[in-house]
Amino acid sequence: MQNFRKYLQSFPHFTSSNWEAAFPYLKKISIKKGAFFLEEGKICRQVAFIEKGLFRTFYLRDGEEITTCFCKENTITCSYKSLITQSPSDLSIQAIEDCELVAFKYEDLQKLYSKDLFWQQVGRLAAENEFMIMEHYTRFINDLPALSRYQQILKNDPTLLQRVPLVYLASYLQIKPETLSRIRKKMATS
Amino acid sequence: MQNFRKYLQSFPHFTSSNWEAAFPYLKKISIKKGAFFLEEGKICRQVAFIEKGLFRTFYLRDGEEITTCFCKENTITCSYKSLITQSPSDLSIQAIEDCELVAFKYEDLQKLYSKDLFWQQVGRLAAENEFMIMEHYTRFINDLPALSRYQQILKNDPTLLQRVPLVYLASYLQIKPETLSRIRKKMATS
Repeated sequence: MQNFRKYLQSFPHFTSSNWEAAFPYLKKISIKKGAFFLEEGKICRQVAFIEKGLFRTFYLRDGEEITTCFCKENTITCSYKSLITQSPSDLSIQAIEDCELVAFKYEDLQKLYSKDLFWQQVGRLAAENEFMIMEHYTRFINDLPALSRYQQILKNDPTLLQRVPLVYLASYLQIKPETLSRIRKKMATS
Repeated sequence: MQNFRKYLQSFPHFTSSNWEAAFPYLKKISIKKGAFFLEEGKICRQVAFIEKGLFRTFYLRDGEEITTCFCKENTITCSYKSLITQSPSDLSIQAIEDCELVAFKYEDLQKLYSKDLFWQQVGRLAAENEFMIMEHYTRFINDLPALSRYQQILKNDPTLLQRVPLVYLASYLQIKPETLSRIRKKMATS
């Protein structure tokens, strides 16, 4: 759980007592590659910090999988709207690699929120971060042509390209796998 | 400022002292129809509660205005990412009607956050709400055909259609004004 502790330490005003307040609620979870942390239609009842591994979130549009996010080690994963509203999730969260998580339940998160300022602040900063990720994704998908989208991933997160199967990457870029293959070949030979 | 006080009262654990803590920081602003609360490229240094009126947020994509949101009375407006990061805004906020606002500065918001749990909680719940608005917008634009987008507005917020000029509504729906006119005519006669 050391990585989660380090993550919390990065927030202002962290003290050991904040960690001790959370500790009884934390639960280690292992999820094998291909298995699900959450399936569409179910309520997201827990939020998890990824100690190791990689997930993707996706939903179905006319039967086609649309990958909306890759969530890797040292970040948080959950179906955020479903967690906040405790209503059925409109997306699934699937492990792309074997994953190790530290999770806590929605109810326990509420207890922490009511306990002190630090946890409310973590919730606020995490929510602000989720907003910025979502806004970036919206502009990324709607404003950039396919080639620029691929180039942006290549520049900002090149190791992701080695970890994510082509079919998921294409679904994230919202292009056909064969178009992505063509872009990659063209860039490799240019 | 009564509407803003009512808005705050809707959050759990509100007390008069929370209102008194904020009061010295609040500033009334009037913005005439067509004028800007914020222009793209400038840093969003304040967040505002809309007591009266209607704004739109928009940005330029290849010279074309893309309206991303209509913000009306009893809601919050700001360029959220710019506010959080105190970096130049990638969108503008323009009044569609004469507007009355209650605003407070970024620095004063930070002071309130550090003061007590209530304000951190307001910040967290507001951030969660902004996230859900952004996620809804993303799915709205990417998953629905033009006609369904218009029908959704018609169903969820029919009064908006009387308040928003056709050209801004078309830019929000990301369709051409002439396509929107065609949809409206078709629906009026069917």
